[in-house]
Amino acid sequence: MKKIRFLRKKINSYLNDTFNYTSKIINRAINFLILLSVLDFSLQTIPDFSRLHPSLEKFEYLVLIIFMVEYVLRVFSSNKPLKFIFSFYGLIDLITILPSVFGLSYDIRSLRILRLLRIFRNYSATKNLRKSFNDVKSELGFFSLAALLLLYVAGTGIYHFEHEAQPEAFTSIFDSLWWAVATLTTVGYGDIYPITAGGKIFATIIVFLGLGLVTVPTALIASSFTSAFHNNKNDKN
Amino acid sequence: MKKIRFLRKKINSYLNDTFNYTSKIINRAINFLILLSVLDFSLQTIPDFSRLHPSLEKFEYLVLIIFMVEYVLRVFSSNKPLKFIFSFYGLIDLITILPSVFGLSYDIRSLRILRLLRIFRNYSATKNLRKSFNDVKSELGFFSLAALLLLYVAGTGIYHFEHEAQPEAFTSIFDSLWWAVATLTTVGYGDIYPITAGGKIFATIIVFLGLGLVTVPTALIASSFTSAFHNNKNDKN
Amino acid sequence: MKKIRFLRKKINSYLNDTFNYTSKIINRAINFLILLSVLDFSLQTIPDFSRLHPSLEKFEYLVLIIFMVEYVLRVFSSNKPLKFIFSFYGLIDLITILPSVFGLSYDIRSLRILRLLRIFRNYSATKNLRKSFNDVKSELGFFSLAALLLLYVAGTGIYHFEHEAQPEAFTSIFDSLWWAVATLTTVGYGDIYPITAGGKIFATIIVFLGLGLVTVPTALIASSFTSAFHNNKNDKN
Amino acid sequence: MKKIRFLRKKINSYLNDTFNYTSKIINRAINFLILLSVLDFSLQTIPDFSRLHPSLEKFEYLVLIIFMVEYVLRVFSSNKPLKFIFSFYGLIDLITILPSVFGLSYDIRSLRILRLLRIFRNYSATKNLRKSFNDVKSELGFFSLAALLLLYVAGTGIYHFEHEAQPEAFTSIFDSLWWAVATLTTVGYGDIYPITAGGKIFATIIVFLGLGLVTVPTALIASSFTSAFHNNKNDKN
Repeated sequence: MKKIRFLRKKINSYLNDTFNYTSKIINRAINFLILLSVLDFSLQTIPDFSRLHPSLEKFEYLVLIIFMVEYVLRVFSSNKPLKFIFSFYGLIDLITILPSVFGLSYDIRSLRILRLLRIFRNYSATKNLRKSFNDVKSELGFFSLAALLLLYVAGTGIYHFEHEAQPEAFTSIFDSLWWAVATLTTVGYGDIYPITAGGKIFATIIVFLGLGLVTVPTALIASSFTSAFHNNKNDKN
Repeated sequence: MKKIRFLRKKINSYLNDTFNYTSKIINRAINFLILLSVLDFSLQTIPDFSRLHPSLEKFEYLVLIIFMVEYVLRVFSSNKPLKFIFSFYGLIDLITILPSVFGLSYDIRSLRILRLLRIFRNYSATKNLRKSFNDVKSELGFFSLAALLLLYVAGTGIYHFEHEAQPEAFTSIFDSLWWAVATLTTVGYGDIYPITAGGKIFATIIVFLGLGLVTVPTALIASSFTSAFHNNKNDKN
Repeated sequence: MKKIRFLRKKINSYLNDTFNYTSKIINRAINFLILLSVLDFSLQTIPDFSRLHPSLEKFEYLVLIIFMVEYVLRVFSSNKPLKFIFSFYGLIDLITILPSVFGLSYDIRSLRILRLLRIFRNYSATKNLRKSFNDVKSELGFFSLAALLLLYVAGTGIYHFEHEAQPEAFTSIFDSLWWAVATLTTVGYGDIYPITAGGKIFATIIVFLGLGLVTVPTALIASSFTSAFHNNKNDKN
Repeated sequence: MKKIRFLRKKINSYLNDTFNYTSKIINRAINFLILLSVLDFSLQTIPDFSRLHPSLEKFEYLVLIIFMVEYVLRVFSSNKPLKFIFSFYGLIDLITILPSVFGLSYDIRSLRILRLLRIFRNYSATKNLRKSFNDVKSELGFFSLAALLLLYVAGTGIYHFEHEAQPEAFTSIFDSLWWAVATLTTVGYGDIYPITAGGKIFATIIVFLGLGLVTVPTALIASSFTSAFHNNKNDKN
């Protein structure tokens, strides 16, 4: 019993102790494997590489076994196994490994990249960013609401102007909302755009209003984040 | 008479008192109904859902009756009914409900979403934003004027360069202005763009000038808003 | 002689004195005429309105005569007529009026909108903006140079990747530069884009580098302008 | 021997001494030649100018000889010739001149523009910019990582939604990544975009998340650069 407790402690330090040199190497190796596994999955979607598929799939099985062993070790070594299993990172591990074992939900494997989120825990920026979001939470809510309202007004407005002229492009208000999204974010694919004079004038007004609505909140987060970052730096000096 | 005054006061507190618990629930229910009504209207524009139209229309009549009752109660419970009717929110209520009653102006219903603007009254950000706009009003006027001038110069310039090469795309200066809007906001649908060497060089110069003209004013509002926001926060501490 | 000097002074105050009430009205009327003249010119480019052309042209002659009278009065009333003629605004007046008189250079008329630049003289923002530009002149030079270098590197790079695959789109380095402009400003018309794997990877790297190069200088002007604006405001209080 | 040392010193001052008047002229002439050489190379890629090719090539040989002489003089005049040869600017000189001498690697000539990087050494902004990057290095790493994760999640997500509907556009995850790049940078060429309802909703969520991820880091550099710039300026006063 004592031996198991010792082993558990040992494994835990190998997997989670950020000051342990062996732990660092192990975690880097795992992160590297995650990247390889994601790359492997991506390569399998290229039709021209179909000749490589058998090897890629074999490699995936190998990675899967390693991840399973890692998961079992993480559960075993944890002081509170249930707490780990239902933690954010525990659930991601479970969701991205378990289904592959049974050959189910083929596509969920790509979520495996979310396991890399672990890396962010070591960044002080994560804490700053969270603080910045909390600081401007109310303002962000305000601007998100305003942006949603503007999106809907834009979508409905352009529908009235363009529906008759282009019934196949602006079929319903939902198609018009897609136009509003592509326009107000200035992506502008060009799959859908106004052609009537009224629609163009309406679009002009909306896009100038919209630029502010999109820019102000990001500027707000950026400014809040920057000041959090500078305070942090001054505290250190 | 006294009873009526009491009833009026009661209804008023149910509809407008932000500290009253019942009032909060009623207002949330109304906001939710506005969203449902807007969704209902949007769904009616999808041709594939035509089988659903009768049910959607029935639901709309139901919502309309509720809104009418709400409007009558708001007018009745108001201390100064005429003032409410001609207030900003009173007029929006009237415009978005009344026409539907008579089956007229079918499309005006979608303006109903503007009734959600009421929500913004409770945000302190609304006050900050209004203050920020006032602070930089003169600067915004300056940049809006400059942007309009640049838009016109861009539109006329590209017209001279492209009209002969693409008479169907750059037919008139107004078509060219549409190009200027799509380019200076960096939306770039791709429905209209220069093809001559002169036009491309002109467009290059204009877009680099234009990025500043569009970015500086939004940065100005953002900066003014951020400082208003931080002052507000410091006052509280 | 004395009478003429008095008349000259009188006309000068009517045209240029910003505190004179009559002068304000005259200048607004002239600005309004400039706008009408520009609109008139723009409307003449719409083929569907060809029936209106005779009336539009008549109106233009009327405006032209007024502008000529204004110009003659400005020269006459000026203390140093030659200095006025060769000043910035004097030259704009000359360039946009004189050619029309002789029926030459048809299209130069649209430059008439530049006469509206006079309005900016009354904005304090003009002074702030000029000061901000001076403050960050060296930095702007730095970033402009860096942006030009990146544009050229982007254009030449994409030419190597795409020239063989799309000889008609990426014909020469100048066509590739047009791609670089449209991409780094995120306009993205869609008339020209990479299709090879190498070109897409190269474009990805370039666009992420380029966003910073374009955003940092505009943020710099904005920040400099904002601080100039706030200092100005604090001085007044 | 003494004579050679004197000559070496003389040439060195002519080439590198920023306070020497002759050196300034020589360096400007060289920079001008670099620009001409780059323009020359670009003009050679225009098919319509093929008649000019012989003259353009002759000019290029002339420039090449001057550059070779300059390189030899730089190596000769340097106190530590080997150190110069393997320095950043020394290697660029070598790479962009040597291959042309042997008629090899035709296209590497366009890298010659990188020789203009020398100009940046004299800008104080270079130092500020480097300092700003160092200040926010950790934050930039954080956001770059987050942006890469978002890019991959966006690419994989859209692949699942669109692969079946558009197998020729969203063939593999790598094609989908190209969509993610073009969308999150808001370039939006329009060569590839979602057409299914699910894909459009997913794209909407991703693009709103992505705007922040792209804007915050550039705002961070801009803010850090601006404060470095202002500190610098205050130190001078």
